[in-house]
Amino acid sequence: MRKIFEAELQALGDDLEQMAELVLKAITGASNALQTQDLTLAQQVIADDQAIDALERDLDERCVLLLAQQQPVATDLRVIVSVLRMSASLERMGDLARHIAEVSRRAFPNPGSPSQLRDTYEQMGEAAQRVAQRVYEIVTSHDLEEAGSIERDDDLLDELHNSVFTTVLGPDWKGSAQETVDATLLSRYFERFGDHGVSVARRVQYLVTGEFGPVEA
Amino acid sequence: MRKIFEAELQALGDDLEQMAELVLKAITGASNALQTQDLTLAQQVIADDQAIDALERDLDERCVLLLAQQQPVATDLRVIVSVLRMSASLERMGDLARHIAEVSRRAFPNPGSPSQLRDTYEQMGEAAQRVAQRVYEIVTSHDLEEAGSIERDDDLLDELHNSVFTTVLGPDWKGSAQETVDATLLSRYFERFGDHGVSVARRVQYLVTGEFGPVEA
Repeated sequence: MRKIFEAELQALGDDLEQMAELVLKAITGASNALQTQDLTLAQQVIADDQAIDALERDLDERCVLLLAQQQPVATDLRVIVSVLRMSASLERMGDLARHIAEVSRRAFPNPGSPSQLRDTYEQMGEAAQRVAQRVYEIVTSHDLEEAGSIERDDDLLDELHNSVFTTVLGPDWKGSAQETVDATLLSRYFERFGDHGVSVARRVQYLVTGEFGPVEA
Repeated sequence: MRKIFEAELQALGDDLEQMAELVLKAITGASNALQTQDLTLAQQVIADDQAIDALERDLDERCVLLLAQQQPVATDLRVIVSVLRMSASLERMGDLARHIAEVSRRAFPNPGSPSQLRDTYEQMGEAAQRVAQRVYEIVTSHDLEEAGSIERDDDLLDELHNSVFTTVLGPDWKGSAQETVDATLLSRYFERFGDHGVSVARRVQYLVTGEFGPVEA
């Protein structure tokens, strides 16, 4: 009985890793499509989000089944509750990567990111990819060493988010209404992506230490 | 033992109702503050969001404790897992109402909603308030009769969200960049508020019927 249960827990962990890997692929694709006006890549990210959604639904059902059938306590219970929450965050990260790709698709053949903000979105894309990379690593290894760097990249994303508004609302902004709308939405998507990355890192911390709180640097 | 457990479950339900009531109050205040440039009301909504966040954290901890201590099965388990998820959605709805109030606060003494979109945001505010009212009712009564109207108001919010972009990107848009940014963000906040309302309705449906899927009209 215990053996089957442990195999089930292991399978949950494997699926969560797979979700984190797909999220990393999604945000990498979405960021690159935004920089290079790559329509095919944008469409790929949009299509691939279904796989992340399907994994979340499946994980969700299996967690509830495990809670019902196995009556887990202590660490086992903590694992299952954490998987439930992390998969919800990863699913949202996938949605946000898809939304970024949708901006590129709509703008094609023009760039999705306004030219005045090209560097900013390049930085946001890089920070978001680092967040996704670290999230994948800590979901896989449960090594919290890199968790602090997720919080720092989230802070950077917040700063860049604010700088977008400074640019858009400044005297030198030459963007059309469409560019202003896209700039606002893209910035919001990247900023939320960072928030969810921090949330996953804190859940892993809870899993490892039993304590929930800001991740140490 | 069973008696204490039932009292705990009842207390979870009471707190969830309280959260739904606070969310209704928040979106009502945020919508009104947006229409009337009422800075005091906007600040009240922003301050009150802390109470919603605190309720969520508390509910969360108690759900995990109950899972650990009581090893619930079947319906009890379904209740606890549903409460975990509904409280997360209600917490996000509170955040979105706060974000709407923050737009009003920043714009004060000017209106937070651009004049060309005043009617649209009035309609969005009304639809969002109906969503919150129905969510409160079905969380309280578990009567699914009104669940369909939440989906319809969510559809209406999606339509209004699209119409905002039609206006902002149309030839008659006279708004400044600040107004374009505010219009985009406000619209996105209302649209997401509707999504979370539908999510709560579906969780109540799962609780009542054991089936998860689109709520019948």
